[in-house]
Amino acid sequence: MPKATGVFKRLVLGRAMRSEELQETLLPKRLALPVFASDPLSSVAYATQEILLVLTLGGLAYLHFVPWIAAAVVLLLTVVVLSYRQVVRAYPSGGGSYEVVSTNLGPSAGLLVAASLMVDYVMTVAVSVASGVDNVLSALPQLAEHRVLLAVGFVVLLTTVNLRGVRESGRAFAAPTYLFIGGILIMVATGLVRYALGDAPVAESAAHGIEPADGSADLTGLALVMLVLRAFSSGCTALTGVEAISNGVPAFRKPKSRNAATTLAAMGALALTMFVGVTTLALISKVHIADDACRLTGADGDCGSVHQRTVIAQVAAAVFGGEHSVGFYAIQAATALILILAANTAFNGFPLLASILARDRYLPRQMHSRGDRLAFSNGILALATMAGLLLWGFEADVTSLIHLYILGVFTSFTLSQSGMVRHWNGVLRTLSDPAERRRHHLIRALNAVGAVVTGLVLVIVLATKFTQGAWLAVLAAAVLWLTMRGIRRHYDATAAELAVTDPRDELRPPSRIVAIVLVSTLHKPTLRALAYARAFRPDRLEALTVAVDRDDTRTLEDQWQTLGTDISLRVLDSPYREITRPVVHYVRSVRRDSPRDLLAVFIPEYVVGHWWENLLHNQSALWLKSRLLFTPGVTVISVPWQLASSARADRPAVSAPGAVRRGHPPPQRKR
Amino acid sequence: MPKATGVFKRLVLGRAMRSEELQETLLPKRLALPVFASDPLSSVAYATQEILLVLTLGGLAYLHFVPWIAAAVVLLLTVVVLSYRQVVRAYPSGGGSYEVVSTNLGPSAGLLVAASLMVDYVMTVAVSVASGVDNVLSALPQLAEHRVLLAVGFVVLLTTVNLRGVRESGRAFAAPTYLFIGGILIMVATGLVRYALGDAPVAESAAHGIEPADGSADLTGLALVMLVLRAFSSGCTALTGVEAISNGVPAFRKPKSRNAATTLAAMGALALTMFVGVTTLALISKVHIADDACRLTGADGDCGSVHQRTVIAQVAAAVFGGEHSVGFYAIQAATALILILAANTAFNGFPLLASILARDRYLPRQMHSRGDRLAFSNGILALATMAGLLLWGFEADVTSLIHLYILGVFTSFTLSQSGMVRHWNGVLRTLSDPAERRRHHLIRALNAVGAVVTGLVLVIVLATKFTQGAWLAVLAAAVLWLTMRGIRRHYDATAAELAVTDPRDELRPPSRIVAIVLVSTLHKPTLRALAYARAFRPDRLEALTVAVDRDDTRTLEDQWQTLGTDISLRVLDSPYREITRPVVHYVRSVRRDSPRDLLAVFIPEYVVGHWWENLLHNQSALWLKSRLLFTPGVTVISVPWQLASSARADRPAVSAPGAVRRGHPPPQRKR
Repeated sequence: MPKATGVFKRLVLGRAMRSEELQETLLPKRLALPVFASDPLSSVAYATQEILLVLTLGGLAYLHFVPWIAAAVVLLLTVVVLSYRQVVRAYPSGGGSYEVVSTNLGPSAGLLVAASLMVDYVMTVAVSVASGVDNVLSALPQLAEHRVLLAVGFVVLLTTVNLRGVRESGRAFAAPTYLFIGGILIMVATGLVRYALGDAPVAESAAHGIEPADGSADLTGLALVMLVLRAFSSGCTALTGVEAISNGVPAFRKPKSRNAATTLAAMGALALTMFVGVTTLALISKVHIADDACRLTGADGDCGSVHQRTVIAQVAAAVFGGEHSVGFYAIQAATALILILAANTAFNGFPLLASILARDRYLPRQMHSRGDRLAFSNGILALATMAGLLLWGFEADVTSLIHLYILGVFTSFTLSQSGMVRHWNGVLRTLSDPAERRRHHLIRALNAVGAVVTGLVLVIVLATKFTQGAWLAVLAAAVLWLTMRGIRRHYDATAAELAVTDPRDELRPPSRIVAIVLVSTLHKPTLRALAYARAFRPDRLEALTVAVDRDDTRTLEDQWQTLGTDISLRVLDSPYREITRPVVHYVRSVRRDSPRDLLAVFIPEYVVGHWWENLLHNQSALWLKSRLLFTPGVTVISVPWQLASSARADRPAVSAPGAVRRGHPPPQRKR
Repeated sequence: MPKATGVFKRLVLGRAMRSEELQETLLPKRLALPVFASDPLSSVAYATQEILLVLTLGGLAYLHFVPWIAAAVVLLLTVVVLSYRQVVRAYPSGGGSYEVVSTNLGPSAGLLVAASLMVDYVMTVAVSVASGVDNVLSALPQLAEHRVLLAVGFVVLLTTVNLRGVRESGRAFAAPTYLFIGGILIMVATGLVRYALGDAPVAESAAHGIEPADGSADLTGLALVMLVLRAFSSGCTALTGVEAISNGVPAFRKPKSRNAATTLAAMGALALTMFVGVTTLALISKVHIADDACRLTGADGDCGSVHQRTVIAQVAAAVFGGEHSVGFYAIQAATALILILAANTAFNGFPLLASILARDRYLPRQMHSRGDRLAFSNGILALATMAGLLLWGFEADVTSLIHLYILGVFTSFTLSQSGMVRHWNGVLRTLSDPAERRRHHLIRALNAVGAVVTGLVLVIVLATKFTQGAWLAVLAAAVLWLTMRGIRRHYDATAAELAVTDPRDELRPPSRIVAIVLVSTLHKPTLRALAYARAFRPDRLEALTVAVDRDDTRTLEDQWQTLGTDISLRVLDSPYREITRPVVHYVRSVRRDSPRDLLAVFIPEYVVGHWWENLLHNQSALWLKSRLLFTPGVTVISVPWQLASSARADRPAVSAPGAVRRGHPPPQRKR
């Protein structure tokens, strides 16, 4: 492919890779962690804040719930990570929740999980990129008017990196992810050491009080429970992306399952440590943050002008000695970066899931093929397109987008843990060793608890966010689910229709051949088509022309006479100057007369070298060919004549019709 | 064609028409006049005004030149009309100036005329529609912001009417044209009768004086001559469109030439009468009009607020008794209408000229074919597209557009009259009768004078308008000229390359047939392709598959074994997961080994009924087919399998590949 587009493609994507190189693109654990885990790790940047924002609706009174809620999130995360380690081991082919649920709860439930996850992957890209752009814009406000352009630019960048292949994208994302992890861990350690030494960090908002929001003061009973549950469900954003590793097992080096399980555990431990550390420091340094700055008390001046920093920013400033310290800037930069990269998790998860769905014929099979660089190019492009449209449609506004988020993940969690319960039921039926049975009873209980808790979170999320935009995500998942079922039905119907029933009968050749050669002008391509038709020794051979222009037809008939061939020329009338319809009608009538014969229609074509040359020749032949393909029992035979210009440009191009053409014939007209 | 698009087409265009109906769409003279003559007749609306506007640059002092200039225009018009009557008789095929010049001055000069005329036709549509919209907007100023939309709307309307066919568009335009002619003639008669009765009409501006423009007072010698020449050349807009009838001869009823000549004479007489009448009345009623209202003297108040009516409006008001009379409104309405319809002249002239150029292979041959309604649809659409773009690009502003105008017409006049001089030279060489010779000497002198005068006008127009935009028209004509030469060269080269040299040799069939059947999966379409290939009794037959996915290939090989056929299956390696390249390479190597054999590649395809079904099947086969067409000596045989859905939707659609596909094979996968 020595053409300009090919060169461009190579520059952007790198050289094409052989299928055997797939092994070499597989991920070692130290690269798999940043590739698959940047999403859950990045949520440390906002999970604590989400919890605080809900609780401070009731002023400072309910902050004592924070440790309990954090503990619940930690417990949930632990349960989910442990459960997914079982999934990775039990289902190593990378189906993840989709496979678990399909196998244990039936294909429709599995497809529901898949649809929810795909919607969520798109949301992950949109939300993470939008939020990352927000952070970039906080630092560079002069770019604010280019928000959407920046967001789409990041999507394009992520797409390009991912199209280059799994391994290289792993490399590109490893450094920032480890930078973020290191930064947060150093911050947590520094803060805790200072606390132990009696020099506890103090947040800039520690002095502020918070007035309860209207109707949220002195809550009791159910209302208080609901508030705490909401805070808990907001904290659950920390769990998004755990799924990705279980779907990504095939991208790991061998032993795939064990490496994936180890990576999952490392990711869980890191996320847990960072989340607990940040939350602890937020409590120690007394970060007081409210969804409305006007509820902060003790602030000077107009509340409209008060700028509340994010929790992680306040903690960093408190720990490292203020908003001008190097540590503060480092944490902020790493946070902005990791948010953009979190989108990369989806760029790994979505194409893999789409490829598995395509394998199971729920999506077009193009999704199953690997591109030049062995990445699932079509899936990557589909994800990028949808996320880009979403960012463009919602103007890259995080607040609008976030409501569509995490529904899918919790649908998947709930169903897959239910599926795992069923899986263990099956396993338990085969076990007799009491110790083994006890161990499996325990694991099953773990999954059952997980299913109930994540199900509860799903209900809470759905209840609190449905009217704020989550309906759109539900609708999208429903439409996707129906579409995928339709695609599968189509593939099944096609396969059933095309399946071989009686090979002996179907391989039997037709006894007679009727050959029809289409002629518009007498030139070399026509003679070649006639010669080829003769070579096949048909039982009946005739030439066919359509009389569009009376003079042209008469010229052709005269030339035919002088040709001195024994092949007869049949002229079809065409009162409406059409080509296709008379030919199709005639071919059908021949077919009706001898339904058991093989009817071969020869079309002479001349092949031109430049696209613009096609404009100079009518495209009637293409149209005619596509119509003839609809006529049962007809075979269309293209006899190409390569013009000199096509030899100079031996590359794919549309062929131009030589045989079927309106108007003036090409042979020289004397002036 | 029972589909929605077909129904829409029929509603807009009417039923399709048989070729024999062409006779019935031919124009009787009473319809031909409005169809071809609305442009020159409409110029009566502004020709007088253009003369006055130039002369009043020197105040009222030079108005005594008006009768002389008008007489010169009348003379020129007479000469041109008489000359074109000769053209119509000598060249009845409708080539008009193009044919005259091609025959007498050579094809390059003829092509130059054609290019200039085509540019001018586009300009006629743009200028006339823009000027018509201006008149509409004078009456309905609230539509002013939709100027471009209105202009494009009129173009679409004209296009639709013309696509319905020549005759119906003649009917649509007959009434307004005759209304305009009648209105102007009644106005002229009324004015002259009032003058004869001593009650001469007085224009509203009669009392105004006009101050000379800077540097235009008391001109003498060459400067005065230049001013008068400019006034004369401005008055020459009255001549645009005379050309159209000579190009439109084939659209006339028989006897075509005589009818066309008669219509041309009638048009000339009418245009002449109306032009002389309006000019006379303008002089009688003392219409004083200046290009800048501030040079009017005797006006009350601020000159910026003075609104000068057009000459025809002032004359109408003076004759019919003021600006609120019925006569005034009738003339204004008819004028606005005729200006829009003048564009229609181009809609008749351009497609005919394009069709003739296509016949001579200077334009794509699509331009030569008549559409459903026997109109030259492609030419009409091309004209409408270019005029629409021009109106959009220049925001339908007459002042910007008018500078690009009338260059082409005068190029055509000059060259065609020179051509006619040569034509008469030829005729004279064959004549011996002295009386006949004298008559022809006279006619030749007439044409020679015409050539010189129109050539002079051309030079004046070019000199005064080149920098104001006429360069664009010159450039467009030059590009068109070069393009048409290139197209002709391509057609000539193609025709030479394809011309039959030795029919006996070229009709000789290849001695051996090598058949290759492409296989990706073993299903009914594949078996049918194998059966058909066998029916052709090839000397060598093999099945070919590309190993994109190792598992799929192994499955195929196993199935092939159980098929129990004697046809061997060849497997091509494809390390980069490509289909096309390995197949093309292999086919080429086979071709190299036996260059004299006929190589037939059978491609099983299944035909689906809905466009979206194509999305679910890879399009590799289409790609492969287009590549194979570039390989000399290879014949591509499509063996279609019609899926049930295609029978329900027997309409043209792209075929989907069955044989060549990446990824998962369709046969049932058990769950």
